[in-house]
Amino acid sequence: MAGVDNGGVSGRPIRVAVLLYDGFTALDAVGPYEVLCRVPYVSVTTVAKRAGRVRTDTGELALLAERSLDEMPRAEVVLVPGGGERGTTASMGDEAILGWLRRMHEKTVWTTSVCTGSLILGAAGLLRGLPATTFWAARPSLADVGAIDTPGRFIETGKIITAAGVSAGIDMGLHLAARLSDENTAKAMQLAVEYDPAPPYDTGSPDKAGPELRRLALKLLADAAT
Amino acid sequence: MAGVDNGGVSGRPIRVAVLLYDGFTALDAVGPYEVLCRVPYVSVTTVAKRAGRVRTDTGELALLAERSLDEMPRAEVVLVPGGGERGTTASMGDEAILGWLRRMHEKTVWTTSVCTGSLILGAAGLLRGLPATTFWAARPSLADVGAIDTPGRFIETGKIITAAGVSAGIDMGLHLAARLSDENTAKAMQLAVEYDPAPPYDTGSPDKAGPELRRLALKLLADAAT
Repeated sequence: MAGVDNGGVSGRPIRVAVLLYDGFTALDAVGPYEVLCRVPYVSVTTVAKRAGRVRTDTGELALLAERSLDEMPRAEVVLVPGGGERGTTASMGDEAILGWLRRMHEKTVWTTSVCTGSLILGAAGLLRGLPATTFWAARPSLADVGAIDTPGRFIETGKIITAAGVSAGIDMGLHLAARLSDENTAKAMQLAVEYDPAPPYDTGSPDKAGPELRRLALKLLADAAT
Repeated sequence: MAGVDNGGVSGRPIRVAVLLYDGFTALDAVGPYEVLCRVPYVSVTTVAKRAGRVRTDTGELALLAERSLDEMPRAEVVLVPGGGERGTTASMGDEAILGWLRRMHEKTVWTTSVCTGSLILGAAGLLRGLPATTFWAARPSLADVGAIDTPGRFIETGKIITAAGVSAGIDMGLHLAARLSDENTAKAMQLAVEYDPAPPYDTGSPDKAGPELRRLALKLLADAAT
């Protein structure tokens, strides 16, 4: 492992704290988890206000948070997944979460988000005046937290990386894997998860999808929200 | 929702049972989950030998199974994720799991797998003489369970769909979403998870990666296995 090509990570192991909160989106957390957890020296831990069961945004799936926020006072990397509107909004107003993010960010090597997780970083005051991205339908909200809405699958600015919606966390995770180790390791992890995408359709961006599918996607998201 | 374009699903809701077992791979289960759980009339449930905490293949992450196998005697769709070598091999010899799969398969509309989940379907005797796929490094093992190793991101044969490794479950999930509802719903779900893949590298298949990255990927998988 190259020790000079990792964005300044010093000391081993490299701790990645994935924040879970009531109403987060499962794939936002699990996508980056899967490509980071096997990178040498990286150890990924799930954290939440309380350790234990955390419900996702559909209510049908739950993940276990291994530690409470208090039990994770320091990590080299913090990752904040997005969530449904209810979960994201609640976290944006939750001082326990926002205070933890501010304290962690003071010492992280990388502070990262997927989807509407960037709005939570923004609510903590971490994106003021910075370029960032989020879930396509939430991009107008970036201005509300002082961030500069910027197109891209993921946006790196200083030590902050924000990814676009849900599955973009996999792409950002590979980028981060390279930052935390080296390009060959990241490339090998792409193969380890056989990430050679071949979706049966080509409707993954709002432009490609068009207005009718945009309306339907927002309706499906709203109807399934808990 | 078109009632005629869903592969024969009758009755509402459409129950999808995602099998979890000690040592499964998180993204294998969560990728398809995320694109299926918001499809109208679809309800996704996680099942395991015992309800409650189920460890993934890295040991760092756990998901909660909502029901035991006995509590889920029937579903329109069964989905079997892959896992590390230990977890997959254990499930392939676990009569409680294999018996459940055989009983479920008698009445499913779709029986599906991601990654080495196809080897578990095969161990249950469900793939004899049928074309199937699996994780790239496990493809030689398909013959051991009587399946015909077939290249493809996912392979549909009768009511069985097997996907390639880990992230291929997202592509299969979109295909299945169309089968369970209609193409527009599947296309809208692709947008809902902003699945417009842009990995920073192009090493997601064994051919594209080449022999050196293949060796490194297998080493990373072996080193992280629990």
